[in-house]
Amino acid sequence: MWSVDDAALERIAIGAGVLGTGGGGNPYLGRLMAGRLLAEGATISIVAPEDVPDDALVVSVGGMGSPTVSIERLRRGDEPLVALRALERHLGRRFTHLVPGEVGGSNSTAPMVVAAQTGLPVIDGDGMGRAFPELQMETFAISGVRPTPAAIADPRGHVVVFDNIADAQTLERYARAVTIQMGGSTGYAFPVMTGAELKRTAIPHTLSLADRIGGAVLAARATHADAIAAVLAVAGGHRLFAGKVVDVNRRLEGGFARGELRLQGTGDDADSMLTIDFQNENLIARTADGDVLAVVPDLICLVDAETAEPVTTEVVRYGLRVVVLGIPAPEQLRTAEALAVVGPAAFGYVDVAYVPLSGLYGGGDGSLIRHRLGGP
Amino acid sequence: MWSVDDAALERIAIGAGVLGTGGGGNPYLGRLMAGRLLAEGATISIVAPEDVPDDALVVSVGGMGSPTVSIERLRRGDEPLVALRALERHLGRRFTHLVPGEVGGSNSTAPMVVAAQTGLPVIDGDGMGRAFPELQMETFAISGVRPTPAAIADPRGHVVVFDNIADAQTLERYARAVTIQMGGSTGYAFPVMTGAELKRTAIPHTLSLADRIGGAVLAARATHADAIAAVLAVAGGHRLFAGKVVDVNRRLEGGFARGELRLQGTGDDADSMLTIDFQNENLIARTADGDVLAVVPDLICLVDAETAEPVTTEVVRYGLRVVVLGIPAPEQLRTAEALAVVGPAAFGYVDVAYVPLSGLYGGGDGSLIRHRLGGP
Repeated sequence: MWSVDDAALERIAIGAGVLGTGGGGNPYLGRLMAGRLLAEGATISIVAPEDVPDDALVVSVGGMGSPTVSIERLRRGDEPLVALRALERHLGRRFTHLVPGEVGGSNSTAPMVVAAQTGLPVIDGDGMGRAFPELQMETFAISGVRPTPAAIADPRGHVVVFDNIADAQTLERYARAVTIQMGGSTGYAFPVMTGAELKRTAIPHTLSLADRIGGAVLAARATHADAIAAVLAVAGGHRLFAGKVVDVNRRLEGGFARGELRLQGTGDDADSMLTIDFQNENLIARTADGDVLAVVPDLICLVDAETAEPVTTEVVRYGLRVVVLGIPAPEQLRTAEALAVVGPAAFGYVDVAYVPLSGLYGGGDGSLIRHRLGGP
Repeated sequence: MWSVDDAALERIAIGAGVLGTGGGGNPYLGRLMAGRLLAEGATISIVAPEDVPDDALVVSVGGMGSPTVSIERLRRGDEPLVALRALERHLGRRFTHLVPGEVGGSNSTAPMVVAAQTGLPVIDGDGMGRAFPELQMETFAISGVRPTPAAIADPRGHVVVFDNIADAQTLERYARAVTIQMGGSTGYAFPVMTGAELKRTAIPHTLSLADRIGGAVLAARATHADAIAAVLAVAGGHRLFAGKVVDVNRRLEGGFARGELRLQGTGDDADSMLTIDFQNENLIARTADGDVLAVVPDLICLVDAETAEPVTTEVVRYGLRVVVLGIPAPEQLRTAEALAVVGPAAFGYVDVAYVPLSGLYGGGDGSLIRHRLGGP
């Protein structure tokens, strides 16, 4: 067990931004709220999944909705707590542990806020190892944890409890429909699981990973070292592309920020153009020639070319100089079972095969083996 | 207190059809389900509102969704019961009485099914005195009963509980969004109120009224008397128009059956055309010249010209010979407070003033004083 201090919050927020792969919401709101609570005397404890008792009562808490909306319409700050309390009331039991649903983006720091508010420890792990736009994309759901009972709450304190829904896709549809009616952004508490279920289904040690990524970035900045190399040294993966943002097409559809962005290559990539499709998160990176450089669930991360500061879908704009990183997804996301839910076809790319980054870069010397759209 | 037998169910279903003013769903599904439960030995008790103790715990139960959908997709039959049990679990208390949300249409007989399933008595009264398309149009909400906690359930047993929502319009938006996701038809349980609140807010004795309307229709049919005159003798009101349906324009919009139907006059009305606008329920009846004959919340009821059988929006079709009845709304719906929620402007008719039927027919001899669209 370790305690999060303000410096750790800063590191985790940076790491969570990288792991957010362009989406997941901005971790800084939660980082600031949690930091304020720490300054007021609260504590935030992190516990390794292997140290969680089998009979623990674990719940995931965080925010739901489009990141574009959640920047425009600041959360009140206690929506996840209100949802958690409603769920406890519904169950007639108190939770013993919190776990992030997704380590990427705002749902890394949102549980820290609830931890500071309640004193409950946060488990060092999550259900995505990155960020994804929909609930059923959590390893909890993929591995059979029941999605309900579940609760959401809005900034006015409105509460909706869902129960007896067997599949996470259905919960996702219902909860998103209400979230849109609630103004586009809610706090959630679900799924409920035992400590044993948590250990079977979570991707472990991802808060530590975010912490180490953020730490590496900050250390590199302080020493004027290569911050991008520092990220890759901790997270693994490759530099996919360096370029300047020349076009951003972003629209709000069904509660999601969807679109594409185009980069004009610089340096070694000066002759190339790269297009990245996103649905909150970056999903697929391909060149103007149709070569696929990386595919969801592998992580496609935009970072500032100088500072390695993560660049999210909601703030990306013309003229930014960025590097695109490709980081292999955790193995739990690369099983056949998981790929059916988080692979390219699940996002509508039925003609794009998932080829793992390690495969794409299987040239022995780490060089890129280009794959044409439609498979190898 | 009285008990409902199969003959009473038949009468109430006919009366509820008339009071449904074209919408409210078909009362026959509930009538058949309740009848089957009666045949299996269940009982259904009706209690007058004045006999309900002040500290009773009352809940309204019924079905939510488009009547067009609920004919196409038969309810499983226990959705309102599932919603009621979820709400009891949420409250940690058991209900003592049921009350129909609306006496018009299917929500007259839906509580009878729950009564037969649970043994709870049904209160002789309701929240509309007719049918309306939206939740906030109940006198319970208009008179300040809190709309939540509330629960809805779908045919697969999925449950959604809403809490801490202060206004019924917001609950209506959230619950309808989920109902649409659930396939268009759900069972509901809400609002929760004490016996004292029930007595302050309900429109009393409306199940008895439906029973007497149905009884009058059946007696007239049996004796070859004028069934339409029999309805008017019990319910009050006027024959507005007699005609043949020549046009029906019906579309499903946002979970509602909206549209218009046109009648070519017959008999005394042979020279006229009548248009009736509906949103599930009939809202406004006006001649081709723009004369308004009746306006919501007054009841505009289509019945078969021979048998007085109610003709609903979902089954009305070209060639039917019908009589249009205008029945004055209960006084609770004609206050300034209520008209803001259930008057013509609430349905988008901002240029139509509400003129009570008694005013429209104020010619002393009961003759119609024609009003032009836009006011007297």
